[in-house]
Amino acid sequence: MSKHSSIDSFRDLRPAAANGLYDRRAFLKGGTAFATAIGGYTLSETLNAQSLVDDPWSASAGTPTGPYEARSRFENSVVRTMTNPNGEPRSQQSRTPHHMLDGTFTPNGLHFVISRSGPPDIDPDQHRLAIHGLVKQPLIFTLDSLMRYPMVSRMAFVECGGNSAPMWSPEPLDANVQALHGLVSSAEWSGVMLSTLLEEAGIEPSAKWLIAEGSDSLALHRSVPLSKALDDAMIAMYQNGERLMPGNGYPMRLLLPGWEGNMNVKWLRRIELVDQPAMSIYEARTYAPILPGGKAYQFYFLQEVKSFITHPSPGLLLSDHGFYEISGIAYSANGRISKVMVSADGGESWAEAELQAPVLPKAFTRFRIPWQWDGGPAVLQSRAWDEAGYVQPTRSEIVAARGEASRVPNVNGFPSQHYNGPTSWQVNQTGEVKHVYA
Amino acid sequence: MSKHSSIDSFRDLRPAAANGLYDRRAFLKGGTAFATAIGGYTLSETLNAQSLVDDPWSASAGTPTGPYEARSRFENSVVRTMTNPNGEPRSQQSRTPHHMLDGTFTPNGLHFVISRSGPPDIDPDQHRLAIHGLVKQPLIFTLDSLMRYPMVSRMAFVECGGNSAPMWSPEPLDANVQALHGLVSSAEWSGVMLSTLLEEAGIEPSAKWLIAEGSDSLALHRSVPLSKALDDAMIAMYQNGERLMPGNGYPMRLLLPGWEGNMNVKWLRRIELVDQPAMSIYEARTYAPILPGGKAYQFYFLQEVKSFITHPSPGLLLSDHGFYEISGIAYSANGRISKVMVSADGGESWAEAELQAPVLPKAFTRFRIPWQWDGGPAVLQSRAWDEAGYVQPTRSEIVAARGEASRVPNVNGFPSQHYNGPTSWQVNQTGEVKHVYA
Repeated sequence: MSKHSSIDSFRDLRPAAANGLYDRRAFLKGGTAFATAIGGYTLSETLNAQSLVDDPWSASAGTPTGPYEARSRFENSVVRTMTNPNGEPRSQQSRTPHHMLDGTFTPNGLHFVISRSGPPDIDPDQHRLAIHGLVKQPLIFTLDSLMRYPMVSRMAFVECGGNSAPMWSPEPLDANVQALHGLVSSAEWSGVMLSTLLEEAGIEPSAKWLIAEGSDSLALHRSVPLSKALDDAMIAMYQNGERLMPGNGYPMRLLLPGWEGNMNVKWLRRIELVDQPAMSIYEARTYAPILPGGKAYQFYFLQEVKSFITHPSPGLLLSDHGFYEISGIAYSANGRISKVMVSADGGESWAEAELQAPVLPKAFTRFRIPWQWDGGPAVLQSRAWDEAGYVQPTRSEIVAARGEASRVPNVNGFPSQHYNGPTSWQVNQTGEVKHVYA
Repeated sequence: MSKHSSIDSFRDLRPAAANGLYDRRAFLKGGTAFATAIGGYTLSETLNAQSLVDDPWSASAGTPTGPYEARSRFENSVVRTMTNPNGEPRSQQSRTPHHMLDGTFTPNGLHFVISRSGPPDIDPDQHRLAIHGLVKQPLIFTLDSLMRYPMVSRMAFVECGGNSAPMWSPEPLDANVQALHGLVSSAEWSGVMLSTLLEEAGIEPSAKWLIAEGSDSLALHRSVPLSKALDDAMIAMYQNGERLMPGNGYPMRLLLPGWEGNMNVKWLRRIELVDQPAMSIYEARTYAPILPGGKAYQFYFLQEVKSFITHPSPGLLLSDHGFYEISGIAYSANGRISKVMVSADGGESWAEAELQAPVLPKAFTRFRIPWQWDGGPAVLQSRAWDEAGYVQPTRSEIVAARGEASRVPNVNGFPSQHYNGPTSWQVNQTGEVKHVYA
């Protein structure tokens, strides 16, 4: 089979930005524009007689896939990277491999997990959810009783406040998108609106917050303003169509769309309405890093607008010059993504990416843009806007506001959090991709 | 814990249809309407001191969830039902348990599968897709080369032409929704538009059809009109964010949104452009049942508008009188679902269900409606409309057009296909649900 190259075959199309970025609409539906652009056969090879010979796996019958289907053995390397895999008595993190996925949400086996004392092995028939405190009528729910309530389904991302923390490093890192941004995932959650249950219990006028508590062994708990609880908070029981994964709170969790992951309390067993926050360790210390001026970054719950490129990214080798699609993920706690701009020259020039429809609020939005790599150096970046008008800050802006991890260490030894600046990938002439600051 | 009952607590709300159906908007956002409706605590129980005692699983640390997370052991009964589980040399079917799922698509482990000779164990690095026949330039693609093309993601249902075939039975069946309708599922598929590849190859004017062929051992192949190939056909490589499941065509399949499942050729290895259909066994015989007038139901590809109720349904016991949510699934090859009507009295009166947003074309739409079960007999039905103006026929209408399986057997012994009439569930006074004709 012969292989053709056509580095300059985009010449008939108008560039949208420097260094090979093309108009996002050029190839939307495929068609002649793309055929013209790649000059007929840039990426494919010509067919010959050998191409139509049977492969070995076509020679005999295959194997049934079982009552609950497992993925192909050839996908075994698509996994979460884990800290503390043996479950020693400290936190454990599992990071989503965004560079090996596509589409607009995260499959359940690969959703990120942080657990502080390991996911408990809960019998769903024995589990109870209590609502008490400043309510007119304290209530307790079984999973079966919750299943009778009006339900809703929605896509929503969940992101750890510490996701992207390596980006506070003063020097770029030998790290891929999974290591840098693997503590965010998105899924369709189905369950009962928390407002339904709170209205049934009856809210006392003095109630301003709630304390949500899990049934993990350290009873992780966080304070949530009542306004969020009555807005879009959900008691989620299903994740992507089936019951929650153990690491994501089986059999029920609190979902606070767009808010700091740690507050989306898993293995939820208790909601107590109170008149002030509990000042739990997570809100008073863990997720309250010290800012350069000496104040704490406390009670800031939103995971603000952010984006990163997943393809190409470190670990994905560009095998040849020519056409590639640049794609990535954008999301915001403030609603829908309204625009993503992409640069191939380290931020000198920008072109608007296509957003995969439907664009949903507080959920992953996949962006895509055509790119012709000429074999020279390139630095790829993305920058997202949301419908509330927010935009990702530059790295220098956010570092000025919060400090870098090594220069301004948190008093508790934790790095800073809530990084939502851009991520830069440098493509070198051999097609390797690495993390840089640009 | 005391339990409260409030059978008549819906009295403050206006009924939308007879036998307990309420307005779909009544409880959309929870709030006071629902609290009023259920009289304070119909479904929940009151809290006492015992409610806040630790459960045994809270007493010690849990177990990390692993690099690719598995679901809870308490979910082991949520499985596909399988014919021919040992893979004897005939077809094998795995049916989706819709009554145990919620949300708007099917998780990968539970997507239905029909395979004629078992899923092959394909090495994705060795697999090739050829496009040849009436093209200007025959082409061959690796998975890696396809990954460089412009990609799209979309939700789409896939349904076997034989799904719901038991509904042709002249007598109702002792069967649940999985047995009756388990050969349809929905997922987000990501891949390359087939039109992109065909335009690159260059279509000869004489080409009117294509033959798509799989690399399974019997090389399953189907003819597809070129108009569909250039409309919304996709070479799908990702299913719900990760690579395709083995049973769904790993590493690539043809996706023809809304069209007969068998045509969505899995393990796709070859697309040949031709000037007339191949008359393969599946189009000439298997999916060409004989109609009452003696003609064959052939080359009819659309899976037309359909809906069924998943909750309540057989196997889900109604444990008590009072509030339940009725929910189910609707879909159509002709675009978006525009309306679903639900009856609780066997089709005498109807109320409009709420459609879970976003409503997407050729994908599952979850519908929901509030229902107060007074403990008396009820027959639940749904009926869907699509944006093209089609509506599910009544059972008598479709039986008149196609015949019942036992009275008009297909010459090949197959039952009739493409049933899209309504499904009726009878609730008896003990809360058991069974299939009836009504």
